[in-house]
Amino acid sequence: MFRKEIKVLDCTVRDGGLMNKWQFSKNFVKKVYDTCVEAGVDYMEIGYISSEDQFPRDQYGPWKFCAEEELREIVGDNNTNTKLSVMADIGRIKFDDIRPKSESVVDLFRVACYDYQIDKAIELAHHVMDKGYEATINLMAVSKVAERSLNEVLEDVAKSRVGTFYLVDSFGSLYSEDIHGLMDKYTKALPGKTIGFHGHNNQQLAFANTIECIIKGANMLDATMLGIGRGAGNCPMELLISFLKNPKYKLKPILRIIQEEMIPLQKQIDWGYFMPYMITGSQNDHPRSAMAWMDSDQKDDYVAYYESVMHGKDI
Amino acid sequence: MFRKEIKVLDCTVRDGGLMNKWQFSKNFVKKVYDTCVEAGVDYMEIGYISSEDQFPRDQYGPWKFCAEEELREIVGDNNTNTKLSVMADIGRIKFDDIRPKSESVVDLFRVACYDYQIDKAIELAHHVMDKGYEATINLMAVSKVAERSLNEVLEDVAKSRVGTFYLVDSFGSLYSEDIHGLMDKYTKALPGKTIGFHGHNNQQLAFANTIECIIKGANMLDATMLGIGRGAGNCPMELLISFLKNPKYKLKPILRIIQEEMIPLQKQIDWGYFMPYMITGSQNDHPRSAMAWMDSDQKDDYVAYYESVMHGKDI
Repeated sequence: MFRKEIKVLDCTVRDGGLMNKWQFSKNFVKKVYDTCVEAGVDYMEIGYISSEDQFPRDQYGPWKFCAEEELREIVGDNNTNTKLSVMADIGRIKFDDIRPKSESVVDLFRVACYDYQIDKAIELAHHVMDKGYEATINLMAVSKVAERSLNEVLEDVAKSRVGTFYLVDSFGSLYSEDIHGLMDKYTKALPGKTIGFHGHNNQQLAFANTIECIIKGANMLDATMLGIGRGAGNCPMELLISFLKNPKYKLKPILRIIQEEMIPLQKQIDWGYFMPYMITGSQNDHPRSAMAWMDSDQKDDYVAYYESVMHGKDI
Repeated sequence: MFRKEIKVLDCTVRDGGLMNKWQFSKNFVKKVYDTCVEAGVDYMEIGYISSEDQFPRDQYGPWKFCAEEELREIVGDNNTNTKLSVMADIGRIKFDDIRPKSESVVDLFRVACYDYQIDKAIELAHHVMDKGYEATINLMAVSKVAERSLNEVLEDVAKSRVGTFYLVDSFGSLYSEDIHGLMDKYTKALPGKTIGFHGHNNQQLAFANTIECIIKGANMLDATMLGIGRGAGNCPMELLISFLKNPKYKLKPILRIIQEEMIPLQKQIDWGYFMPYMITGSQNDHPRSAMAWMDSDQKDDYVAYYESVMHGKDI
């Protein structure tokens, strides 16, 4: 698949950080950055941008804050073809704490929101655009959003100045027919805008769903090294780069960081295909109960987990 | 997804045996059988059927031969709703060594063949049908078969009495658009016949491709417990059963064997998503070089493997 409009965004540090409170070493983050640059990845999302009073620094690593000076320790002035992205949660970053683009190495703000937050999300996206940044809106948990509410969201986004809107499979619960239906809906409602896709791998469908989104016209694609991310993780970068035929992408640097960093890291952090995550995905549930189970002494008792979430139903 | 015509076939022992020369304990095979029965799985494929002079017994376990008395040690007379299947490779089983169905607990012979073996495959399938068995033909490695040859195969199968023909993604290289094209071709060429699907998981697409086959009308679906199988393995049974809504299928017994048998087994046998298998899948290659690499001292050096298979190309 070669389509020059396609952009790949690495969110290894940002989504992977959900598993370790963003306590990655600077050496690791630098290696992810160097890999993205060498592999031709278009954007690297280095973390969440948050105001300092939102989270305690002694519990959360630097990539939960994305302070300008800490970003520059990794990327310098970032004179590369890989743009730098940060994710903003509604209410976690004060407008006054966002400096003008001319004073920042960040290129892109991605605003994550639930359907009921869409007005706040558009306000924040417009604000960062006015300060000189690119912006996207990433509507989370769409698999739980009722039709009328989703229509309202799309109408609001259509009227906004925000150029990119993301289909997000937060629970890893969407099948290809869901993807096709939502992509049809999004592209019809948002003419002229770019559609992005962010998948989760609970049912081993993150890469497959990314391909379906490409077929249906999505041009901004999230992936992570060896699929690291919350719970079951995301679309594996190595699969996506192997699939895309654009000559600017290179697989070898990605294989290198996988063998040198990701495989050892997987021995410390249990992301990936585990039965509790598979079960929440197939049930279209938030993975929080599965993550709690994976942190407990019973983590390997899948039958007990299944019984607990099915509440005595016939299984 | 509920469609009453859909049948699920477990090939845990048969395809998984490619990783350990079928040296599973009788206790393990019995547990797989009990799980299939309890979970409502329609067929269990217990191994390859081979004449005794084809392979040395001191190197291969019983499930490479499927001698009647050894099958009965596991399943007795198999008075259950789960039918018993064996796979036959062309030239590995003498016709005279196949007893009449009235003397066997086997229900189904699946004949695996390459395109150039189709006449022999049809001859063998007709032979076992005449002896009272069900039969399928499983055309391997279709991703490497040229169009004219595939058309000939389909014409021959169409004229035969064989009722079920399998789409087999031997290398785990097929994408959804390949699946759609092949399913269109198979169903058009084989009116009235059942189409089956057997996937491999090199690119984490085995389950996704199974769903695409279901959408396109396939009604016989292969899967294995925790996806065990050659190299990257097959479509995970737990995902397929979670997806199918037919009330006869139960997930809980599958989760039980996964936690009690498959997770410990995975510490001994390296099936699953490893970079060498991912690379052969994305290159549409046989996994043999990846399997050799995974057996070598260099197994964790993915960059070296990639360089070796790309033969100095720009990567």
